[in-house]
Amino acid sequence: MDSFRVIEIKQSVFADNNKDADALRAELKQKGVFLLNLMSSPGAGKTTTLTKTIAALKDDLKIGIMEADIDSDVDARTIAGTGAKVIQLHTGGMCHLDADMTRQGIRNLGTEGLDLVILENVGNLVCPAEFDTGSVKNAMILSVPEGDDKPLKYPLMFTISDVLLINKIDAADYFDFDFDACAARVKKLNPAIEIIPISAKTGEGIDRFAEWIKRQVKQWNRQEENRG
Amino acid sequence: MDSFRVIEIKQSVFADNNKDADALRAELKQKGVFLLNLMSSPGAGKTTTLTKTIAALKDDLKIGIMEADIDSDVDARTIAGTGAKVIQLHTGGMCHLDADMTRQGIRNLGTEGLDLVILENVGNLVCPAEFDTGSVKNAMILSVPEGDDKPLKYPLMFTISDVLLINKIDAADYFDFDFDACAARVKKLNPAIEIIPISAKTGEGIDRFAEWIKRQVKQWNRQEENRG
Repeated sequence: MDSFRVIEIKQSVFADNNKDADALRAELKQKGVFLLNLMSSPGAGKTTTLTKTIAALKDDLKIGIMEADIDSDVDARTIAGTGAKVIQLHTGGMCHLDADMTRQGIRNLGTEGLDLVILENVGNLVCPAEFDTGSVKNAMILSVPEGDDKPLKYPLMFTISDVLLINKIDAADYFDFDFDACAARVKKLNPAIEIIPISAKTGEGIDRFAEWIKRQVKQWNRQEENRG
Repeated sequence: MDSFRVIEIKQSVFADNNKDADALRAELKQKGVFLLNLMSSPGAGKTTTLTKTIAALKDDLKIGIMEADIDSDVDARTIAGTGAKVIQLHTGGMCHLDADMTRQGIRNLGTEGLDLVILENVGNLVCPAEFDTGSVKNAMILSVPEGDDKPLKYPLMFTISDVLLINKIDAADYFDFDFDACAARVKKLNPAIEIIPISAKTGEGIDRFAEWIKRQVKQWNRQEENRG
């Protein structure tokens, strides 16, 4: 028996996604739930990174995960194994999630008692970057086998992300990947971005990502109090 | 000095892309130019595969290459090094090419004296599968580091492709990739698809892909004669 549900989400009816994303952010602020949007190409290691990150955070934060895919439930099944609250979203062929689709997911997940919800967006380095999901922060993964030239070809994703995880560093000897050149290209697009090299396979760097998340959630909660 | 041009293509005005794709196919048939559409995730190895494939085909076919990217000209620069005719297309942020965008590229490339034009589509496992480019055949690459579960998550791309190259097999020892499970998932979606394991890095399997292309071009030219 599965410990998660699969939800078919509907295409949005809102014309102004940016406005709707701001509304969702305000709704989540009221509930005290921090939303993190995780994006990457297919196969860059989002789900494996999440399983390790959940383990690193589970004593500090109550976490819910939304797995968005065009089809299948393999990712939700993997996350369910960690014991975290999880839901599988099917996008009906859509290549990204917008704010209203994210809201449908959150309503089905339920936020009661949660501190942090992580949306694993559809694997796609192009379209998800164009749609604000209502998240507080955007995280992205670039994996070593994809190559260090990706910031040149897909600049928007690197521009709108707050943190870049460079994954599969355990396989760096196998591939020509120039970390310094990649970092320089990314920083040129987005000087404020934090870059964290990780291996979701070995766990290297995951602690640093977990610390980054905790820091963001803490700062955001403090903003809450100041405004309240 | 570069030996290629960079063209900014415009968004299409045609409402019915399928009809327009059929029209483009007919136009190209009249010119005797076979169009192959090559798709994959970012970083799966499209450009490296093309450089090796051009080398394997250059005595048999006159080849033109269209490199489609949101930004940069790194791929056209790489292909120009092979001596093949090449043009860089910028999609203006678009995540895929449709038939009219492809036609704009072909007009700028010029087909005089060419037997085969290969379109390297935008790196994206979702959207390009939804738009017929006017190609005679669709080729796709899945790379080993992406994982064997991708046919489950991105079924349309595997369904509409005529040939699947499984690339980076030289790195197979580094990653958990079950070839038989992957092939079974793909064949369930698309029993007629041809699956060719390759390593664009070492050149393994490229001859088989080159033979596949030659066979397709030959069959298509024969169809031409029979109808003429």
